[in-house]
Amino acid sequence: MEAKANGPSVNAGRVMDGPTNPMVTPLLTDLYQFTMAYAYWKAGKHNDRAVFDLYFRKNPFGGEFTVFAGLEECIKLIANFKLTEEEISFICETLPGSCEEGFVKYLRNIDCSDVEVYAISEGTVVFPKVPLLRVEGPVAVVQLLETPVLNLVNFASLVATNAARHRLVAGKSKMLLEFGLRRAQGPDGAISASKYCYVGGFDATSYSDNAYGSSLFFTNVDSLSKLMFVLLVSVLCCVLASNVAAGRLFGIPLRGTHSHAFVSSFMSPDEILERSLHRSDGSSTCEDFVSLVQSWLSKIQWAKALGNTVGETNQSELAAFTSYALAFPNNFLALVDTYDVMRSGVPNFCAVALALNDLGYKSVGIRLDSGDLAYLSGEARKIFQIIEKEFGLLGFGKTSITASNDLNEETLDALNKQGHEVDCYGIGTYLVTCYAQAALGCVFKLVEINNQPRIKLSEDVSKVSIPCKKRCYRLYGREGYSLVDIMTGENEPCPKVGERILCRHPFNESKRAYVVPQRVEELLKCYWPGKSGKVREELPALKDIRDHCIKQLEQMRPDHMRRLNPTPYKVSVSAKLYDFIHFLWLNEAPVGELQ
Amino acid sequence: MEAKANGPSVNAGRVMDGPTNPMVTPLLTDLYQFTMAYAYWKAGKHNDRAVFDLYFRKNPFGGEFTVFAGLEECIKLIANFKLTEEEISFICETLPGSCEEGFVKYLRNIDCSDVEVYAISEGTVVFPKVPLLRVEGPVAVVQLLETPVLNLVNFASLVATNAARHRLVAGKSKMLLEFGLRRAQGPDGAISASKYCYVGGFDATSYSDNAYGSSLFFTNVDSLSKLMFVLLVSVLCCVLASNVAAGRLFGIPLRGTHSHAFVSSFMSPDEILERSLHRSDGSSTCEDFVSLVQSWLSKIQWAKALGNTVGETNQSELAAFTSYALAFPNNFLALVDTYDVMRSGVPNFCAVALALNDLGYKSVGIRLDSGDLAYLSGEARKIFQIIEKEFGLLGFGKTSITASNDLNEETLDALNKQGHEVDCYGIGTYLVTCYAQAALGCVFKLVEINNQPRIKLSEDVSKVSIPCKKRCYRLYGREGYSLVDIMTGENEPCPKVGERILCRHPFNESKRAYVVPQRVEELLKCYWPGKSGKVREELPALKDIRDHCIKQLEQMRPDHMRRLNPTPYKVSVSAKLYDFIHFLWLNEAPVGELQ
Repeated sequence: MEAKANGPSVNAGRVMDGPTNPMVTPLLTDLYQFTMAYAYWKAGKHNDRAVFDLYFRKNPFGGEFTVFAGLEECIKLIANFKLTEEEISFICETLPGSCEEGFVKYLRNIDCSDVEVYAISEGTVVFPKVPLLRVEGPVAVVQLLETPVLNLVNFASLVATNAARHRLVAGKSKMLLEFGLRRAQGPDGAISASKYCYVGGFDATSYSDNAYGSSLFFTNVDSLSKLMFVLLVSVLCCVLASNVAAGRLFGIPLRGTHSHAFVSSFMSPDEILERSLHRSDGSSTCEDFVSLVQSWLSKIQWAKALGNTVGETNQSELAAFTSYALAFPNNFLALVDTYDVMRSGVPNFCAVALALNDLGYKSVGIRLDSGDLAYLSGEARKIFQIIEKEFGLLGFGKTSITASNDLNEETLDALNKQGHEVDCYGIGTYLVTCYAQAALGCVFKLVEINNQPRIKLSEDVSKVSIPCKKRCYRLYGREGYSLVDIMTGENEPCPKVGERILCRHPFNESKRAYVVPQRVEELLKCYWPGKSGKVREELPALKDIRDHCIKQLEQMRPDHMRRLNPTPYKVSVSAKLYDFIHFLWLNEAPVGELQ
Repeated sequence: MEAKANGPSVNAGRVMDGPTNPMVTPLLTDLYQFTMAYAYWKAGKHNDRAVFDLYFRKNPFGGEFTVFAGLEECIKLIANFKLTEEEISFICETLPGSCEEGFVKYLRNIDCSDVEVYAISEGTVVFPKVPLLRVEGPVAVVQLLETPVLNLVNFASLVATNAARHRLVAGKSKMLLEFGLRRAQGPDGAISASKYCYVGGFDATSYSDNAYGSSLFFTNVDSLSKLMFVLLVSVLCCVLASNVAAGRLFGIPLRGTHSHAFVSSFMSPDEILERSLHRSDGSSTCEDFVSLVQSWLSKIQWAKALGNTVGETNQSELAAFTSYALAFPNNFLALVDTYDVMRSGVPNFCAVALALNDLGYKSVGIRLDSGDLAYLSGEARKIFQIIEKEFGLLGFGKTSITASNDLNEETLDALNKQGHEVDCYGIGTYLVTCYAQAALGCVFKLVEINNQPRIKLSEDVSKVSIPCKKRCYRLYGREGYSLVDIMTGENEPCPKVGERILCRHPFNESKRAYVVPQRVEELLKCYWPGKSGKVREELPALKDIRDHCIKQLEQMRPDHMRRLNPTPYKVSVSAKLYDFIHFLWLNEAPVGELQ
C-alpha cells in the first residue's frame, strides 16, 4: 500500500498514498465540523487533547457479529490530511461572520501529526460497543475526521459482513461471484462493494474444475494508481460479470458469458455466416460447425436414454449459443433460460457442447437466471449425467451450473434445504446494496478530554456512551473460542492468562461473569502513532486482510454465527470501569424535581 | 450543463460534458458486454440495428409511483462514449483467445454517433413496464451501454423517489434537510443522494423565518468542473450538516450547528476565557457574556410562569452553548439532548438566547436528536411561548425546532398523527441508503432487432418483456389527472384527444378499458438523435428538473400517492400491440411434450 506517487505523506520516514477515492479529502465532511472548529478556536480549546471512540451499537442483518473493514482507507486519509489554501479560503467565506486571521493561520497548520489512532485489525470479527478506532488528538482536528472516517468504515464493514454471511450460508465449496455493478448505489458503489465482499470471503480465485481463469493472481500494486488498486479487487470478485475498468492495468485473465439480449438478438442458425472452427489443437478445421451442432441436437432428440423428452428447441437460442461458441470455443458458458430451460436451453447447450467436444474443446457450463433453481439445477444435472453416459463424454456430468437470480442469504439457505446442483452463485443486488439492512450505525463519540472522562447520556440506555480512554481485550477459553471482549481503563493492569477477572455488562448490574482466560489478545493496535514515537502497525495487503477475516470467522463459536437465533457474544467492562461509568452518569444527569 | 472544458463531445454543433463522476467511462461495464461485442463481431452481427428498453417492473417502497432520474448522466456518458487506445489494448488482452486486428479496428471506431436515445423527461413520475429510455443503435454498441446506464438510472431514480415520499408525508410547509454523508454507501454515495433528493423535493432554500442562509442561489456552473456541479447540489440539500467539499467553488452561504461531542467537550463556564461580545449593531460591548447568560439562567429558574420546574442545569452544556454563541452570535442553534432536553438543554438554550437578545442577536433554534420528538418538541414550544410572554421577547415562541433522530417515512407519519412542533427535519440514513428498499430493479431488454420484434420469456409473467419498438403516451382525463399510460407499436396512429381508444393490460386478457383522453402526452422524447437528424431535447437545469418533478407529483391522483394501500396506476398496451405480444409469445415458447 506504500507508494511514492499520488500525494504522498511522510510519517516516521514512510510515505503513504492517499485514500483510494480521490473525493475523500478533508472537505468531505459535515459543515458543522468546521463551525465547531471555529468555536473551539474562539474558546481557546482547539488543542484540548480529546479521545474519541468509533463503534457501533448493534450488529447488522439480525446477526451477532460484524466484520470490521475500512481501516486502511481511514489511515490513508489521516496520513494525508492537509487543507489547501483554496480550501481554507472557501471555509472562511462559508463560516457565518468574519473569519479571523488567527483562525486562517490555524487551519493552514492543521494536519494529523499529533493524532494517535489505535484500531482493531481490519478483517477482525467485532462486536457492539467495543471501539473499532480510538482517535486521540487536538479536539478540533479529531472532530474534522469524524464524518469521513464514519463514511469510510460504515459501508465497508457492512458489506464485508454481508459477504461473510453469504459465504457462511453458501458453504466453503461453492464459488461466489459478486454481480452488483448495475444495481449498486451510484457509479462507485460497486467498487467499494467488490473490495469488501472480497474481504468477507467472496472468491477471487478460479473455478477448480473448469476453464475459469486458473491463473488469477495478485500483482504488486505499489507503484500503480490508488484507484486501480481497488479496481483490481473488483475484478477478482466478479469473474463472470465484472467491471471491466477493473482489470485494465493488471493483466488478470477474465472470462465472460452472455445475456438474454444476446440470445434473443439471433433469429436462426441460418444467419451465421462464418461457420468454420479449428480443432483446439489446430490440427484440422471443421468447415461447418453449425451443421455439426445441428447433427448433435438431432442425436440428443433421438437419444432413448433421454426418453424422447427433447422436442423442437428454440432456433434463435441455438444460433446464439453456436455463435458464442464460435467466438469463445474454450469458454463456452450458456445462459439457458431465455425461452425454456429444460425444453430448449439445456438441450441446445448440450448440442453445442458435444460439437465443441468433437473438436477438442471442453465447455464451461450453464447459467440459470430464473425459475426454480433447485429443481432446474437438478434436472440439468441429470441430463448432463445421461449425456456423459450415452455419448461417453467423460466429466460432462460435472458440467458447472451457475445460478444468479436475485440471490440472497434466504434463497441460498432455502436451496440448501431443498437440495440442488448449483456449483456457483452470482450474487448482486442483495449483496452490494446490503438490501437486508442498508446501513451500519457506527458513531464517533468523545470519551475523554484533557484527561477528563466524558459521557454522552440518552433516554435510551443503548445510546449511552462508555467514557474513558480505554484498552480492549479479547479473552479466549480452553476450546480456543473467544469468550468475551472486555474494556478497561487505559491504566488498569492487562488481563492475564490463567488469572480470574470479573467481566461486567456495562449497563446491567446483574450481568457479570468471572473469566479465567487461556489466551488474551489486545484488540487496539497503534496504526498512526502521531508524536508518541510508538511503532506503527503496517497496513496489510488486502489478501492478508481477507485471510485474517476468514480465519476469524472460522474461530468463532458456531452459535454466535448461525442465522437463526444466534447467541449474542459478550462484551463487558472491568469492575473498575463499571463503577466509574455509573459514578459519572449520576454526576452528569440532572436530578429531576417532582411537584 | 453545456461547457467547453472537460473532455467535450461534439454533436449537432454542440459540446457536452462527460458524466459527473469521472469513473463513469465505457469500461465501467460488465465484462460480458465486451465478450458479447466480440461474438457479435465474429458473427458479423455487430451492426444489426437493435432497440432496447430500459424499464423497471415494480415501484419501490411498497408504493405505486417512481420518480425517474439519472437521464442527464446517461446522455453525458453517451455523448462522450469513446474507447482510448489503452482501454482497447486492455480489452483485447482480457478477452479469452486471440483478439483479431479487425476487432481492434472496430473498437477504435466505436462511439454513439449512430445511437438514438428517446427518454421520458427527468423528474417525471413513471410506472412499471413503460420504457424510461429507448436506446436504438448497432447491437454491440448499445449492449456496451447497458451496465453503466442501469447503474446511473437505478440509484438516481430510487433515491429521488424516496425523497419524494418523505416530502409527501412531511408536508409542504416543513424544511427537509439531507443528512446522510456519514452513513451513505461509500464516499460519493452521499453526492448522488444529495443531487437526487433535491430532485425529489428536498429543500435547497433557506428557512423562511430565521437566520438560515437566506441568499442561497444557483450559480452558473457551465464553466466549472463536472464534479463540483453535483457537489453544489449536495450543499444546497444539506444546510445544517452539509458536505463542505460541496460549496467550495460556489460561494453559497452555509450555516452550521454542533454535535454532542462539542457539548461534552466542555467542563464548565469557568473555562471560557474570552467572554466579551459586541452588540449586533457594534454600538457597545458586553464584557462578560458568560455572566449575562448565568443571570438569565437564574431568572428562568425563578420565573413563576415556568412553575419553578427548572432546577440545576448541566454546566458543561451551558459552557458549550455559551461558547458556540460567542463564536456565532447570529447563528445560534443548540443541540439540546446531550444530557436532558427539558431539565437542561432547553433552559440552557433559553438562557443563552435571552442573553444574545440583550445584545441584539436573534437565535436560530434547537435541535432534538433523541427521545420522544412529538412530546419534547411540544414541551419545548410551550417553554418558548412562556418565555416570549414572560420576558416580552417577540417571536421567541416561534423559535425553530429541528428533529434529526433516524427519521424516515414511518416516523414522520407517526409524528403527524401524534401532533408535534417540529419545523425542520434532518433525514440521513433512511433517506440516502434507501433503507426501506436499497435497490430499484431496472432492466435493459432487447425489444427489436433488424426490425424483427423480440421477446424475453420467463416462467414468471412479470418478467416477460414487451416486444417491439414502441411509442408511449400518457392519457389525461377530465379532472386533469392522468388516467393511464399506453404503449403502442412505433407506426400505430397516435391516440387523439376526444377519440375513444381501447387500453389493454399487456398480459391479463380480461383487463381492458376504453379511454377518451382529454389530453395526450407523448412520453418518449429524443434526447440523443444519432444520425436521424431529429432535434435533440435540451438537458434542463437541475432546478427545472426539480420543479417538473414537484409539479408532476402534485398532478397525480392522490389515491396513487397515499402511503397505505395506494391504487396502482394503469399501464396498458394498444389492442394491436396486445395481439402481437401474444402471437410472438406462442411463437417463441416451445410446446411441451407430455408422456
